[in-house]
Amino acid sequence: MATNDSKSGIKLSSRTDCVVSFSDPVRDASEATSANRYHETQNPQGIVDLCMSQNTLISDLILDKLQQPELLKWDETMLTYTERKGTKRLRVAIATYLEDQTGSPQKIDPDMMCCMNGVTGVMNLLTYVLFDEGDTVLCPAPFYYSIPRDIMYISKVKTYPVPLSSKPGANGLKAFELTVDHLEKGLQKAREEGHRVRGVFLVNPSNPLGLVYTKEQVQAYLAFCKKYSLHVIMDEIYQCSNHDESTANSSVLGLPLVAVPDPQRTHMLYGFSKDFGIPGSPLGVLHTWNQDVLERCVSLNDYQQASSFIQSAAAKMLEDKDWLRRTYFPTNLSRIRDACRITMETLDEIGASYFRPQAGLFIWANLGKFLSQDTEEGEKRLTFHLLKGGVGLSPSAGYCGGEYGWYRIMFAVPRHRLTEGLRRLKESCLSFSTAP
Amino acid sequence: MATNDSKSGIKLSSRTDCVVSFSDPVRDASEATSANRYHETQNPQGIVDLCMSQNTLISDLILDKLQQPELLKWDETMLTYTERKGTKRLRVAIATYLEDQTGSPQKIDPDMMCCMNGVTGVMNLLTYVLFDEGDTVLCPAPFYYSIPRDIMYISKVKTYPVPLSSKPGANGLKAFELTVDHLEKGLQKAREEGHRVRGVFLVNPSNPLGLVYTKEQVQAYLAFCKKYSLHVIMDEIYQCSNHDESTANSSVLGLPLVAVPDPQRTHMLYGFSKDFGIPGSPLGVLHTWNQDVLERCVSLNDYQQASSFIQSAAAKMLEDKDWLRRTYFPTNLSRIRDACRITMETLDEIGASYFRPQAGLFIWANLGKFLSQDTEEGEKRLTFHLLKGGVGLSPSAGYCGGEYGWYRIMFAVPRHRLTEGLRRLKESCLSFSTAP
Repeated sequence: MATNDSKSGIKLSSRTDCVVSFSDPVRDASEATSANRYHETQNPQGIVDLCMSQNTLISDLILDKLQQPELLKWDETMLTYTERKGTKRLRVAIATYLEDQTGSPQKIDPDMMCCMNGVTGVMNLLTYVLFDEGDTVLCPAPFYYSIPRDIMYISKVKTYPVPLSSKPGANGLKAFELTVDHLEKGLQKAREEGHRVRGVFLVNPSNPLGLVYTKEQVQAYLAFCKKYSLHVIMDEIYQCSNHDESTANSSVLGLPLVAVPDPQRTHMLYGFSKDFGIPGSPLGVLHTWNQDVLERCVSLNDYQQASSFIQSAAAKMLEDKDWLRRTYFPTNLSRIRDACRITMETLDEIGASYFRPQAGLFIWANLGKFLSQDTEEGEKRLTFHLLKGGVGLSPSAGYCGGEYGWYRIMFAVPRHRLTEGLRRLKESCLSFSTAP
Repeated sequence: MATNDSKSGIKLSSRTDCVVSFSDPVRDASEATSANRYHETQNPQGIVDLCMSQNTLISDLILDKLQQPELLKWDETMLTYTERKGTKRLRVAIATYLEDQTGSPQKIDPDMMCCMNGVTGVMNLLTYVLFDEGDTVLCPAPFYYSIPRDIMYISKVKTYPVPLSSKPGANGLKAFELTVDHLEKGLQKAREEGHRVRGVFLVNPSNPLGLVYTKEQVQAYLAFCKKYSLHVIMDEIYQCSNHDESTANSSVLGLPLVAVPDPQRTHMLYGFSKDFGIPGSPLGVLHTWNQDVLERCVSLNDYQQASSFIQSAAAKMLEDKDWLRRTYFPTNLSRIRDACRITMETLDEIGASYFRPQAGLFIWANLGKFLSQDTEEGEKRLTFHLLKGGVGLSPSAGYCGGEYGWYRIMFAVPRHRLTEGLRRLKESCLSFSTAP
C-alpha cells in the first residue's frame, strides 16, 4: 500500500493525507469535551467546556433578536441565486457598522467586500488566491491553533511562528509585545531556512492573548509588510469584543486610507461567530482594497455561499443601531468583563499568573507551576488531569508559543457554568501539583 | 509583469489565474440576463431568464412551508458550533426521505453522509479528496456547463467529455444514449492523449438532457468503473424532479447494496436547490460508503458549513412526509409537466426538434436550423440575437456536446413569464432565420 493510500486501500488524493496526519495538540481536549459535554441537569458529570471559543453568555439576547418577526421573514429573493459577493443590503449594513465601530475617517466601500459562510472559509479562499502552494506567512505566536490547519489543508500555505516572550524585556518591552524587530528577525530566520515568505497574518485583537494592538503598532507592522512586499491579513474577528474601556479599537479600517502603507496588499477579515455568538450559522466577510483579489475570491465563492436568509437576518440585526448601542454591546461587554474578573480571581487564588486581556472571550493563563516537567508531555498530563477533573482547556502546545504550561481559558459561558468550571480547574490544579 | 501577476501588478497565486482566464460560453447569456432581468411591471423590457436552472414555479409552496412557525424556531443549539457532518436530525431526515424516493431495499445510513452548503461545495471537497491535481474524470456530453469549472478551480481535476450523438444509431441506439462502449472508447482515447483517468462523473437525471438512466444502465456504468478501478460520482441533484410518470427513479441508493459493483468507489451527491427551489440557501449532501472519503470531507467541511438554522428548517420540511407526498411533489411535478408541454408546443410550432425530457427543469432543444453557420461563432450570433429579443438561453458550446445550435431552455418559471419568454424565443428565431 502506497503512503498516500487510505486505510481501505482505495487510492485517494495524496494532498489530503495531511488532513489525516495533522497533529493538533488541542484536539484531545476539544474532542473529549465535545463527546461528554457538561449540562447542569442532563449531564452534571460531563466536562465543562472552557476550551472552544464561543460566546454563550449572550445567547438570550441573540435569540430574542433573531426571533423578531422582522428577522424571520422569507421572501422570494432569498430563494433564488443571489449576488455572489453577498447581498448588497448585508454588505452595506456591515460597512456602516464597521464605520461606527472603527471610527473610520472615510466611507467603507461595500463593493470591496465579499461575504462568505464564515471566517474559516474566508481564510481558505483568501490564502488560496494570494499565495501559491508552499508559500509561507509569518504569524506572531502564541497564535490561534486553527490557523496552520485552516491555511494548509487546501491552500497549502505554511505558518511560520514569530515567538513572543511572556517576560517583559529591555527598553520597556512588555510581555508578549510584538515589535517590528521581531518581524524582521522572523523574516530573516524563515528565509534562511528556505521559506518563501509572502505574507504576515495578524490577529487583532489577538487570540489567545486578548491583546489589542495600538493604531501606531498596526501602522508599524503594515509599514514592515510594505517594505518587503508582503501581503498582510488582518483577522479582526474579535474586533467588537474589546471589553477594556480604556483601549481603543484599532481596526485597519479605522486608519485614514493615506496612512495605510500598502492598501493593495492589506486585507481584513471579520465575522459574526465571535462578536455575536452565532458560529452555528457562520457568516464571514473579506474587505480588500485589491480589485483582483476581490474578483478571484468572488468567483471562488460559489463553494462557500452563505444562506441568503441568514444574510438577511444579519443585515437587519446590524441595521438596528439602537439595539447594538443601547442593549447588545453594553450587556455583552459587561458580562464578558464580569466573567473575566471571576476567572482572574480564581487564578489569583491558586497563584497562577496570566496575561490581562483587553478583548476577546478568553484569558491566557500560566499553569506552568503545576507541571511536573516543563515539556509538551508534561503539559499533556495536566490537560488530561483537568479533563478527568471535569474541565476542558486548550493547552499552549497548539499555539506554538514555545512556553509550556500556558492555557487559554474561555470564560464566555453562563455564570453558573463558569463557576463550576473554575471550581474544577482550581481543584484539579491543586490536586495535580500535590499528587505523588 | 510576470504572467501570473494580476492586473494591478501585485503578485497573486498563479493557481487562480485559471479563474480569470476560464472561458465560459454560457457566461454571456447568463450575465446579460442577470444584469437586466425581466419583471412584468418593474422591468418589462428586461430579459426573460430561461437560462439559469432554478425552479421558481413552486416558490409559493416553498415560502408557505418555510414560514410555518415550526420551521422558524431558533434555539440555543443552532447558535453554537454543531456537528461537522451536519446535524444528526438533518442527516436522518435526508436518509429517510431518500429511502422513500429511491425505494432503497436497505436502510440508508445517516452516518455515511456529510451535509455542506450546496452541491457545488460537495463537488469541490469530494473531488479534492478523491483526486490529485491534473487527474481526469470522464463525463458524458452534453454535460452541465459548470462541472469543468467546479472541479478545476480548486481541485484542479480535468473533465474529459465522452460525446453522445443526437442521432439514433445502429443496434437500436437511441438519441444521446450512453453505452459502456462509449465509456470504453472515451477511456481509451483519454489515456492515449496522456490523461490520468481516475473517475467518471454521471449526472442522473442528466443535465441538460433531462434523461433518467435505467437501473440496468446505472449498474452497467458502475461495473465499467469497477473494471478500471475508477471512482464514480453520481450527481443526483434532480433526482426528485422526475416528471415522467412512466420513468422510475434510478438512484444508486435504490440498488440493493450487493448489486453495487464497487461501493468503496461509489459516491452520491444530492441537494435542495433544484428539487426544492432554494439555491439561495444552499444545502448539499454527500453519501459515500467509503469511511476514509467521508472522514476527509468532514475534516475539510469547516470551510463549507451550512447554517444550522437552515439545516433545521430543511429537516423539518423533509419530516413532513404528508406535505411532500400530497402537496409538494404532485403540485411541483404537475406544474413542471405543464411548463414542459407548453415549451414543446412552441418548439413544434417553429419546427425545432428537441430531446423529450423525463426529469429536470429544462429541455434540450435544437435551434440549429436557424443558424447561418454551423459553428460556435454562428451559435453565438443566435444567442445574442435572442438576448436582443429579450430572452436568455444557454447555448451548447458550454455543454461540450460537439453539435452547435442546441440550447437548454429552462422552463420552471411562472406561467405568464414562460409564455412571454417563449413568445420572444419564437419571434427571435423566426426573425433571425429570415434576417439578411
